[in-house]
Amino acid sequence: MPIARKMADFIEKSSWIRKMFEEGARLKAIHGADNVFDFSLGNPNMEPPEEVRDHLEQVAADPAPGLHAYMPNTGYPHVRKAVADFLGREQGVAITENEIIMTCGAAGGLNIVLKAILDADDEVITPAPYFVEYGFYADNHGGRLVAVPTRPDFTIDVAAIEAAITPKTRAVVINSPNNPTGQVYSAQNLAELGQCLEKKSREINRRIYLVSDEPYRKIVYDNIEVPGVFDCYADSVMATSYSKDLSLPGERIGFAAINPAAGEKQQLLAAMALANRILGFVNAPALMQRLVALVQGTSVDIAEYDRKRNLLCNGLDRLGYKFIRPGGAFYLFPQSPIKDDVEFVGALQQERILAVPGSGFGAPGYFRLSFCVADQTITDAMPGFEKTIAQFQ
Amino acid sequence: MPIARKMADFIEKSSWIRKMFEEGARLKAIHGADNVFDFSLGNPNMEPPEEVRDHLEQVAADPAPGLHAYMPNTGYPHVRKAVADFLGREQGVAITENEIIMTCGAAGGLNIVLKAILDADDEVITPAPYFVEYGFYADNHGGRLVAVPTRPDFTIDVAAIEAAITPKTRAVVINSPNNPTGQVYSAQNLAELGQCLEKKSREINRRIYLVSDEPYRKIVYDNIEVPGVFDCYADSVMATSYSKDLSLPGERIGFAAINPAAGEKQQLLAAMALANRILGFVNAPALMQRLVALVQGTSVDIAEYDRKRNLLCNGLDRLGYKFIRPGGAFYLFPQSPIKDDVEFVGALQQERILAVPGSGFGAPGYFRLSFCVADQTITDAMPGFEKTIAQFQ
Repeated sequence: MPIARKMADFIEKSSWIRKMFEEGARLKAIHGADNVFDFSLGNPNMEPPEEVRDHLEQVAADPAPGLHAYMPNTGYPHVRKAVADFLGREQGVAITENEIIMTCGAAGGLNIVLKAILDADDEVITPAPYFVEYGFYADNHGGRLVAVPTRPDFTIDVAAIEAAITPKTRAVVINSPNNPTGQVYSAQNLAELGQCLEKKSREINRRIYLVSDEPYRKIVYDNIEVPGVFDCYADSVMATSYSKDLSLPGERIGFAAINPAAGEKQQLLAAMALANRILGFVNAPALMQRLVALVQGTSVDIAEYDRKRNLLCNGLDRLGYKFIRPGGAFYLFPQSPIKDDVEFVGALQQERILAVPGSGFGAPGYFRLSFCVADQTITDAMPGFEKTIAQFQ
Repeated sequence: MPIARKMADFIEKSSWIRKMFEEGARLKAIHGADNVFDFSLGNPNMEPPEEVRDHLEQVAADPAPGLHAYMPNTGYPHVRKAVADFLGREQGVAITENEIIMTCGAAGGLNIVLKAILDADDEVITPAPYFVEYGFYADNHGGRLVAVPTRPDFTIDVAAIEAAITPKTRAVVINSPNNPTGQVYSAQNLAELGQCLEKKSREINRRIYLVSDEPYRKIVYDNIEVPGVFDCYADSVMATSYSKDLSLPGERIGFAAINPAAGEKQQLLAAMALANRILGFVNAPALMQRLVALVQGTSVDIAEYDRKRNLLCNGLDRLGYKFIRPGGAFYLFPQSPIKDDVEFVGALQQERILAVPGSGFGAPGYFRLSFCVADQTITDAMPGFEKTIAQFQ
């Protein structure tokens, strides 16, 4: 075996995803990319806002010395201060640069917090459907992901999470607005989760962390507010990125914020900074740190995504697809009209529509559509969606 | 315990390093940064070459769509091709973009290759003195670092490495030009190592990888050539970055290259790409990828480092310090005039000179000086070096 057994296993298990993408690439080669309706990727189709592009030119041209050198593993102090100031205003919490670590996107942030807290064989609970990478992130650091189904409306089933907590539980990872469902957890739902974690932490005599993955926080519709987790539970950490709201996913810039009320937070901060260093991130990319400090609060035009959401939801609703209308993010997670979601996604491919089976998110019987695509892609795909559902009715 | 036991242990073990840096910061606060002679950091003092800065402005201003979006986890194909083309010319190997993965610096590259190949409890051998992060990198992925002393001139002791190989050995990590010694391994030394690894791989019936960490490849003196590892051993991977030769360490850009002659290299490549994704790097920063594609072969003015090397070596030689003259990198690794290197480094601090004890590199009895500093720092520190060695003679 030329590679680690575990990695060979991971590659093997994800081979169906690869085959699906290969089939997509094959369709594009045959029909032309414009004639394939690709709803499979969470790669924002919008460009970064003009303000961001202007500031990028500015920071790239800055002649001051030392701007590409190493800085503290946690990031530039002035950048962390800008992030803390905005976060404090946004969520009404008293947070400082000392609770912020700049990271290589939310993925980097989640990995450093899990490395900081997980002992061997620790359990990490997440509501399912869930972003499939969480399983890898827990495993990276010796942990094990435990998926606990949500309620049918994709909100957190707190009683089920409580029942899943064992003496090995170290963290609960949530994601709101959610990938793949678009669900935004209410303040009430989060408060119940917080109470549950307080009670169970006492019971197992161990700090259970709440880790909140929030890259879609700014992408919400119908004036929904995304409640912060800091109010609902002290031992919480937020990880996020500028990938989605500034359309910069390739640049790998985000941050992790530790709840100012977290217990022994200095140790947590030191462990996360060390994890950032030794996992090989070292620090978040310097230039992008300096960029995001200048554009706090900026985002792409959410109305664009809202229009796409409505276009897709209204279209599919008319055709008889069943789904929960997403309150945020740019994903729709309809029920598969047949039990076998992989088969249904295969049938959509016959119509040159690319989607991801719910099985890829721990939720068979559903499929995910990303609507961060051109409006035309949505409208042009409708006949295909219609033909496919008709086959199974 | 609010954090993982292992991380608490790491923080505790490295507390003496932190105390040393805190003492350095304290000295700077008292005497002013200009009056403290800081030889402790490998943070290049030179700015990126003008050509790099010009191209950075250009790529930052590029209005083409999709430039900050996700790309394949291995990096942009055109960037990988530019890297492969230069590497092929530089080292005389037939290598293509299919053997290149763009990474978040060399640290990112080393982590993805170790994650790709290490099973639980596998051993990773490295010649000591060594870059202390290697221990963390091996541990990150369930492995264990085994340090094997070099010969007295800091070249690889191949017989000692052969003796250290067990059925658990999975990789040998080397670093040439070396941090902390500045040693550049000869083609002969590498060829012997390659023969040893071929023999032992057959013997233990397991592929032992040679992983070559080469961020200082372009920083060499006296017309020394740095032999490539691809010629000496088939199952080899090179990891490097643009941090040192382009003075861009904060930007986290580098690459890993798989020997075109490596066995089952498609699997290795797939595992490394998956590791890049799931460790949270996802991909190397997009903008910096596009930048380095345009400046292949460029480097800072090595003559500057050469001048600093001579200034430091000649100065310390006159004062009676004993050392091997470095052939590359920007470090000098003199013998401590007393057995206790930590005590000696403490004595240097009394003269406002900051160095790192050899104990931090698995080599007690030495200390490391980074000469990527202003010339004035070197000349102004000489009286302090003189006074300190005099105390112990």
